[in-house]
Amino acid sequence: MSRTVITGTGSYIPTEIKTNKHFTKQSFYTEDNQLINTEPEIIIEKFRKITGIAERRYVKKGLNTSDIAALAAKEAIKDSGIDAETLDMIIVAQNFGDVDACSIQSDAVPALASRVKHLLNISNPKCIAYDILFGCPGWLQGIIQADAFFKAGIATKALVIGAETLSRVVDDYDRDSMIFSDGAGATIVEYSETDGSGILSSSALSHCMDEVNYIYMGKSYAPDADGAIKYMKMKGRKVYEYALKYVPEAIKDCIDKSGVPIENIKKVFIHQANEKMDEAIVQGLYKLYGYEEAPKDIMPMCIHYLGNSSVATIPTLYDLVLKGKEENHSIQKGDVVVFASVGAGMNINAVCYRL
Amino acid sequence: MSRTVITGTGSYIPTEIKTNKHFTKQSFYTEDNQLINTEPEIIIEKFRKITGIAERRYVKKGLNTSDIAALAAKEAIKDSGIDAETLDMIIVAQNFGDVDACSIQSDAVPALASRVKHLLNISNPKCIAYDILFGCPGWLQGIIQADAFFKAGIATKALVIGAETLSRVVDDYDRDSMIFSDGAGATIVEYSETDGSGILSSSALSHCMDEVNYIYMGKSYAPDADGAIKYMKMKGRKVYEYALKYVPEAIKDCIDKSGVPIENIKKVFIHQANEKMDEAIVQGLYKLYGYEEAPKDIMPMCIHYLGNSSVATIPTLYDLVLKGKEENHSIQKGDVVVFASVGAGMNINAVCYRL
Repeated sequence: MSRTVITGTGSYIPTEIKTNKHFTKQSFYTEDNQLINTEPEIIIEKFRKITGIAERRYVKKGLNTSDIAALAAKEAIKDSGIDAETLDMIIVAQNFGDVDACSIQSDAVPALASRVKHLLNISNPKCIAYDILFGCPGWLQGIIQADAFFKAGIATKALVIGAETLSRVVDDYDRDSMIFSDGAGATIVEYSETDGSGILSSSALSHCMDEVNYIYMGKSYAPDADGAIKYMKMKGRKVYEYALKYVPEAIKDCIDKSGVPIENIKKVFIHQANEKMDEAIVQGLYKLYGYEEAPKDIMPMCIHYLGNSSVATIPTLYDLVLKGKEENHSIQKGDVVVFASVGAGMNINAVCYRL
Repeated sequence: MSRTVITGTGSYIPTEIKTNKHFTKQSFYTEDNQLINTEPEIIIEKFRKITGIAERRYVKKGLNTSDIAALAAKEAIKDSGIDAETLDMIIVAQNFGDVDACSIQSDAVPALASRVKHLLNISNPKCIAYDILFGCPGWLQGIIQADAFFKAGIATKALVIGAETLSRVVDDYDRDSMIFSDGAGATIVEYSETDGSGILSSSALSHCMDEVNYIYMGKSYAPDADGAIKYMKMKGRKVYEYALKYVPEAIKDCIDKSGVPIENIKKVFIHQANEKMDEAIVQGLYKLYGYEEAPKDIMPMCIHYLGNSSVATIPTLYDLVLKGKEENHSIQKGDVVVFASVGAGMNINAVCYRL
């Protein structure tokens, strides 16, 4: 039977390293504009223990989201060996468009996918380029969309990218800003007759009642800030509780649909949001199957040195593992893995995939 | 056989009417920041003759793109008679996110589709909400996506919306700004066994070589403007030539795929971009079929009083015609119509549809 197979991966790791030490001179404020008096070193150490983040990467001033999306795409195209002119679709998952350094404006006209196609010098007009906005799970939703187009007989080959430069939209005075980073991950997916490899199942959820404002654009926490300028904001506690409540179930739903027993799942590639939260989600998943705890080494993590780059984390992490760049984690042909994400919307999705 | 059928339509017509007269006190500049010395009345009359626009609509200060998207959606849901909780998908096509009056920032976190779902009070988490960015043809691309999801067996009922508030992103000193307006159009599409009605075929094209910058974000034409602030800009001549070169062929491709003879096409619903351009496109289409000219009344137009509201024009126009609000234009069960659009990317698409 035909299935959607990932035939190439690529990622762009930004070059500007910001260690936690970088934030020791930063004043942080609460949501109510009160200065947080705790010593910066203590704030940062607590932050590291929860999130797992020791450093994160930002892009250089002259680069934008579409630029790094194209750089990751070039690597994925090369990795797959396809001729880029044969692509039927380019889907870019993003949430803020291109934001120039020193600007507060998002620019997504034309869409970032059009810009990527331009940068890749693809002239074939039948290669349709568009962006999707679905919060952090956007890249995975792009994969689900490509899979739908394949099954509908409309396309057979797609480039799906997740790219974001969160360094351009964060509030320096908000502790949560230390979580966020820049990055781009890209994959080539193709629909072909397989021996069982490819996408086995998928699940998606959108909760938009109270949850709609858990991740949002709001004003700076600094007391003297211009209230008209908005930054990326997060109700951390709400996001954490939401994720623990719904993500394990969504992953289980996806695994159950695939027919693969939990024991045969080799790795869980989870959105690099926050280490403690990710660990709790994976523990929650295994509890749903009656296990006391999740297997060791089930969950590769790159958040320690890359931070949370939104839509870019999963394709970047998958690329790193495939290319042997994550110690203690290797996967090979025939292995079944799960991808899962959660983010603004709130949205959740999961995909079961056999290599 | 099963096909994708439009079972409900709705639109939101903004309440603030700006007639051409409104612009008589406006100074206009060229791209090179030179004051255009022509009398305003003469500029405006020339503008009206080319674009067909006598007035346009803007939203009130307190409304945003997601608000009017939800208002159009409510009408479409009511029109279709469905229970909104049974929707599998909400797709919002937009290009600028929510832009508050008096702000230059786009806000699309969470995505506008999440906000719409919130405003519609839909609690079903299996109703997946996301945005697509595809320039002006975004609504039609959303319809093509819903159709793909239906054919893939992933969904059977979708709300597809096109909404934009261009009044928030235009440069007052650029004559082209008089073209642009605000609006929202929504449709419910369902996959069902039909007697031949539904989507018959579709076509799409993305040209992103030189064309990538024909519609873009650029600085104001005013000589003393802040160069860091970007507004929606258009290379009018390039867009015009591009559209005439490619759109007739794309529509023909779509009609030919449907198997319906050109003589049986009852109406062409074309993106309300510019009256002269739209007329030239439709004339070009009929020339491709060997006709000297297009049939009278083939092309409903609402640009005269609604302007160009980007993604919103086609669903709004279709809603108006269906509801008997466009003089000289009526359609009925069994009629075959074509929808076609062109815009930033550059992107083109067309859909053949039997009522």
